Order: sequence, then structure tokens, then C-alpha cells
Amino acid sequence: MSTNTIKFKPFEKSDKITHFKQDVWSIFTPLAQQLKAANLGQGFMDFPPPDFVIEAASDVINNPNYHQYSHPKGRPNLKEALAKSYSPLFKRTLDPDTEILPTAGANEGLYATFSAFLNPGDEVVLIEPFFDQYIANITMNGGVPVYVPLRPQGDTNKVMSSEDWKLDMNELRSKLTSKSKIIVFNTPHNPVGKVFSLVEMAEITKLAEEFNLIIISDEVYDRLYYEPHVHERIANLPGAWERTITVGSGGKTFGTTGWRVGWLIGPKNLVGAALSAQTRIVFCVNTPLQEALASSFNAAEKHNYFEKNIEAYTRRREKLMKVLTDVGLPFTIPQGSYFILANTAKVQIPEDYPYPEVIQQRPRDFKVCYWMAKEIGVVAIPPSEFYCKENAHLAENLIRLAFCKTDKTLDEAAKNFQKLKRYIKDV
Amino acid sequence: MSTNTIKFKPFEKSDKITHFKQDVWSIFTPLAQQLKAANLGQGFMDFPPPDFVIEAASDVINNPNYHQYSHPKGRPNLKEALAKSYSPLFKRTLDPDTEILPTAGANEGLYATFSAFLNPGDEVVLIEPFFDQYIANITMNGGVPVYVPLRPQGDTNKVMSSEDWKLDMNELRSKLTSKSKIIVFNTPHNPVGKVFSLVEMAEITKLAEEFNLIIISDEVYDRLYYEPHVHERIANLPGAWERTITVGSGGKTFGTTGWRVGWLIGPKNLVGAALSAQTRIVFCVNTPLQEALASSFNAAEKHNYFEKNIEAYTRRREKLMKVLTDVGLPFTIPQGSYFILANTAKVQIPEDYPYPEVIQQRPRDFKVCYWMAKEIGVVAIPPSEFYCKENAHLAENLIRLAFCKTDKTLDEAAKNFQKLKRYIKDV
Repeated sequence: MSTNTIKFKPFEKSDKITHFKQDVWSIFTPLAQQLKAANLGQGFMDFPPPDFVIEAASDVINNPNYHQYSHPKGRPNLKEALAKSYSPLFKRTLDPDTEILPTAGANEGLYATFSAFLNPGDEVVLIEPFFDQYIANITMNGGVPVYVPLRPQGDTNKVMSSEDWKLDMNELRSKLTSKSKIIVFNTPHNPVGKVFSLVEMAEITKLAEEFNLIIISDEVYDRLYYEPHVHERIANLPGAWERTITVGSGGKTFGTTGWRVGWLIGPKNLVGAALSAQTRIVFCVNTPLQEALASSFNAAEKHNYFEKNIEAYTRRREKLMKVLTDVGLPFTIPQGSYFILANTAKVQIPEDYPYPEVIQQRPRDFKVCYWMAKEIGVVAIPPSEFYCKENAHLAENLIRLAFCKTDKTLDEAAKNFQKLKRYIKDV
Repeated sequence: MSTNTIKFKPFEKSDKITHFKQDVWSIFTPLAQQLKAANLGQGFMDFPPPDFVIEAASDVINNPNYHQYSHPKGRPNLKEALAKSYSPLFKRTLDPDTEILPTAGANEGLYATFSAFLNPGDEVVLIEPFFDQYIANITMNGGVPVYVPLRPQGDTNKVMSSEDWKLDMNELRSKLTSKSKIIVFNTPHNPVGKVFSLVEMAEITKLAEEFNLIIISDEVYDRLYYEPHVHERIANLPGAWERTITVGSGGKTFGTTGWRVGWLIGPKNLVGAALSAQTRIVFCVNTPLQEALASSFNAAEKHNYFEKNIEAYTRRREKLMKVLTDVGLPFTIPQGSYFILANTAKVQIPEDYPYPEVIQQRPRDFKVCYWMAKEIGVVAIPPSEFYCKENAHLAENLIRLAFCKTDKTLDEAAKNFQKLKRYIKDV
């Protein structure tokens, strides 16, 4: 057979990825850059990491010993720093060797955990709204997502607390079957800002025990909660530890989202299985930034970093809430994390506005966010991306605003938001 | 139902990971550290990266703008640096936006590519010996590995060239079916050191065209080949480009295996699919070390780095070959990469030697490597790990030695290898 006679046939993508839509981040982050709009969209900091963190990283980079492969289990220095910082918070002596695993970002930690436990058809319960990457992380590993929404109680056209977003435990129970394998839990919650109470966590744990579920507790915002609220860990509840894998993020903790170092904390059998998967997915996590994160944790106490960080974010939260109050957009006051959900029901966007196709086919919140980016000069994220198709309508009047931003950006947003006022019509 | 009555049932791991054996690296790398043996095992450098690389990384770390998320497509600086360096080598103008993708190490790049194209039951042809991670990367994504060994021609009890390891094209053809989707190709080859010829690559390409295979060309050692041999790229052969995704490694290129930044180069449709998968697996690659790699590429020419690096490795290769010649172990002279396969058929290890269970159940080469680490003080890697079970016997008399090591390590190996002489019996 001569090569000349062979016609090239394009290669089909796997079923794992063919159904992916363009992700929300790669729509709105480049849009913000292109328009030079005030970017309250993607949850990255537009300010530098603290000096002591940069110094830690700089010391590491100049050390010739920190540039080769790490053991797949992670750098001992980081594992020990995490054990030291988290043992008091988990109210147990964490074993750095077997109960802590550095990951290539929290995202990859989630992916590896799903890979380690999901067989085709296994069901994973997600609480809506959810971090959008969960879906692909589950389906690529053969799992089937099942959805239960948080439901806001009271008048959503008024300012409310994230405390008012409730999980209906009967609704959750109705979604559990013999196929249920994992429930993904998230506190402080992105994007609602909810800090779950011990009572709510006890109810979830009880259901997890009854249906023998693994709990993946996404706690990447565990160092960000606002008075009088306190972050509690579901792993500390009676009966929870042996079934819970808690996900953490160096990027969220130290303002270094680009380092891609996260971690898993949990019992040996759960963490060991995730390690087994992770070793084949990325082999190991990058060495210099694992070491830099270890040094950052070790220096954090001396710099009173976690307290100061909450103070700074409390101030940023106040600032953004004041802006929204001034503009006249009702919102949910977050108990934790660095996001605010605002309600845009009263915003009347021009009906004939021209949208690109990637926006046209999506719910109202995508249109509001696109229009706001172009015409108002503020970038937000449409939270219907964090709901299943059937429940996306629950978010059509919401936008997510991030306040992990400089005063300059928040002030610019405040200024640009003035233009929104004339589109707001009280109904 | 009271929580007290519920008995905790341990969670079963997914079928994707239950069959994993302990990987060879996590056996022999810790063993080397524990015994303080001369470590010619895992292929990491025990010398620091070049000064200009450290300087590049240090500049990046001190730049406050390089600590947040990257776009999943990768840092523009790195994509442009790669396009500049690789366009002449690929004999085409590479589009940095669509034809180049930074990955979280070459390993994750491979994983993402398999994820993007494999459906359950799709077959992937591997040439033995192969990089052991391929197997899990394939099976975790539903693929089925199919094996064809390189077969050494001539007397393996004498010194030979890696050129003498041949792929039988009829044997390869006999393994291809309508289910074949991908062939994984690797040049310069780990662990054989073979640099495939244009004639061999043309034959492989012809079969790939006939069976419409994607070619994954693992070229992580593309900057390491020894006179008079030259590394050729299969993507440059007629008919190959549109079906080939080439895998590269920043760690192998600049002596920074811990940075975990690699890349994929190929046509838009192949690279785009891998991006789609990668975005869900790790979201993005770490930002500072992508930027540091970009600066390293940009500075490499000025420092004449690639030529000097080949000179340094040529010297290390000579040194290790001299050691093996002196000890009396026949070996394969590598045309490229930084590995030497040595033949241990003549080594008579004590028959009653006590092995831990993880070694006991493996082929002879694991026993030789374990015994050598403990009794001789030199750590090597058993290459049967790089063969399927049925073909593992082809490697039972081989060990893999890495020479990406300091003179001190190589001299120590030379000294310790003296102890081996009394165990060598000519047959």
C-alpha cells in the first residue's frame, strides 16, 4: 500500500472530553484583559504574595538541592509543616507520612481522589452551586454526578447572609442510592460564602455513614472566615474522620494560585489510594514550590499571617459590600471565602444586545456578565456554570464577584459600577 | 438509624488503581538514600542546574507578577520561546498558540493525551522496553496496551551499540488491528539509548498511516545524542505531522526534573484535545517555573548550552563505559539519552540471599539490583519493569545505569564496582 493512496482521517476525541463546553475561566479572564475592565472575575489575587512568602521561594530557588524530582509522597519538609499547622485544627496528631499528601494544586488532588475511588456508574453527590471542575473530574473517571442545590431562604431581593442558604437534608437523602460512593462537601463555600454549621455537618455525616459515602471536603478557603463565624472541619465530627479526605490549597492560603501546590489530609487508606493515582497522573509535585510552601507555613506564625490576612480580607469584603449597597444590588454577605453573590434581577440589560455564540447559548447570567464586562467595565463570573443544566435557572439572576483584589481594582469597580445605576429598575 | 449501630466498611479502590504494583522508583530511590550507595538509579541529576537557569528562576520568583494562575493554554512567554527554539527543528513555523502546550511535566502531558483520545478497549502499541508510567497512563484512561519488543541483534554478552536493538516491522504489523488507536514511539530511547534512524521512522510512519494511528513521540531526551548520531524527529517525516504529538521535558533539557514543566508539540487538533483534558486534570501548569523555563530557553543560545551539555554528557558516558569495561560487564553503547544497559548474565549472586517480599516476587534483575545496592554499593534500575509480564524475561539479565551524575558519584560507583569483580564468572 503506497502512502500516497492513504487519506488522512481526523482523529476522534475520547468520549471523556467531547462533551466539554468552553470553560467559564477561559471566556471571562481573557475578556477582562482585553477590555481592561475591573476584574472581579476569576479568584486570583491581583496583588503580590506577602514578602516573607517571596523570600521563602527565593531562598529555595537559590538552593541547588531543590530542583530535582520529589518522592511522589511529597517533600518531607512540606508534609511536616502541614502536620504541624493542621494537627491542632484537626484535633489529632496527623502522620505526615501517611495522612498528608501534597498535590499538584487542589484541583489535581480532587482529580486523583476521584480516579482512586470511582468505577463506571458510581454516583457522586454535589451540592449546588459547586466548583465547575468537579464535574469533569468526576465524569472523566467514570463517575455520575448527582445534584442537590443549596436553597436561599427568605427574600433574595434583599441583602441576606450566606447562613440563609440551606441544604434540605430530605432532598439530599432522596438523591442517595446504593450507587452513591462520594459526597463532595465545600466549606467555606465557593461561591455562596457559606460556612457550614456543626449541626449541618453532623446531619451530612450521618447520611454519609448510613450510605457509607466517602466525604471529599473541599476546604481551600479554610483560612478565610469573618467574625463571628469560625471554620469548622467536617473531619472532626464523630464518625467522619475515617471517611473524609480534606482538600487544601497553598495558592488560596498564601496568595500564590500559580504555584499549583495543594494537599490532601485524611486517613491512610484514603490518602494512600489518592497517592497511588496521583503517582501515575503527574508522578510528583514540583519540588521548589513545595519547599517554598513549607517555609511559608513555618514562617506564617511569626508574621501573624493568618490573622492579618483575615483582617485584610474583612476590609476588602466591607469595601465591596459598600459598593453593591451604593449601586443598589442586593447580595449575600459571605461568612467565609472571598466571593460575593449579587442579585441582578433588577438590572435591565438591552434586549437586542449582540452576544458572541459562546454566550448566546448560555443562561441569562452569562449575558449579564458579558454585557457588564463590555458596557459597565466590571468582570464577574456567571454562577449558572456551577449548576447542572436542570438547575441552572436558579442562578440566572446571580453574578459572582471576587474581592481578592487590590483597593485600586475595587475602587475602579466602584467607579465603573456607577454606570450600572441607570439600568437598575425596581420591580 | 443511630450512628452507633453503623459499622464502618472500608472503601474499595477503583479498578483503575487496584492492580498497581509498587513502582520501581519508590523502591530503589529510598533504598539508595538509606544505604548511601552510589546512585545510578533514577534519572535525576545529582548536580545543580546551570547558573543561568537558577538566575532565570530567581528573577522570576522575585517578580510579583508571576505567582498567580496561568491560562490553561500556558504562559505566552514559554510558548513563544518553545516556538522559537523548536520551529527550526520541526522544519516548520510552529504556532505558539495552537501547536504548543506546556504540561505539568512530560508525564502529565502523556496522561492528558491518552485521556483525550482513548475510549475503553482502544489499543495502544508500546515498544519494549518502555517508560513504565505509560502503562498506568493508558489503562487508567481505558486503553489496552499491546507490546512489541526491541530485539538486540548479535551477541549480547559482548559490548554492542544501541543501533543493534531492532524493531521487527513484521512483528509490529502483526500487533495492529482495527482497535489500534495510538503508537507510542520514543527516541532517543530510555533505557536502550537507541536513536532511531530515518528509515526506521519511515517504516513506523507508513504503518501508522495504514492503520490511522496517532503517534505519541516521547522525545524528552531530544537534546542528548552522541557523535556521529543525530536526533531526528518522526513528526518531520512525510505523512507524520498531522498524526504526531511530540512530548518534551524542561527537566531533562535543563537539569531541573523537579520543576515539572514539559510540553506537547503537534497539530492544532491533537494539541487542542490534550489541552481540553489537561485543563480538567491540573487546570494549569505552575506559573513561576513556566516563566523560568521560558527565560532558560531564551538564554540557552547565548550560553552555547545545548552543545556544552552534550560535551559534558559525552564525557560522563565515556567514564561510565570505562567503569563497565574495567569491571567486565558487557553493555549497550547508547547513541542518545543518559542511560546504559549492562548485561549481568555473568554475575553470580548468592543463591540464598534474603530479599524483601517486594523484590522476591519479581524477576532476576530486581534481585540483582537489590543485592548490588546492599552488597556492592551501586544502585541501578531493573529494566524488566519496562516490559510486559510475558516479555519480562528479556530483561532478566539487564540493569539500567544512569550517568546524569557527578564525577564524584561516578567515581564512587567505579570504586564500589570493584567489589563486583569476584562475583563475575565467565560462562
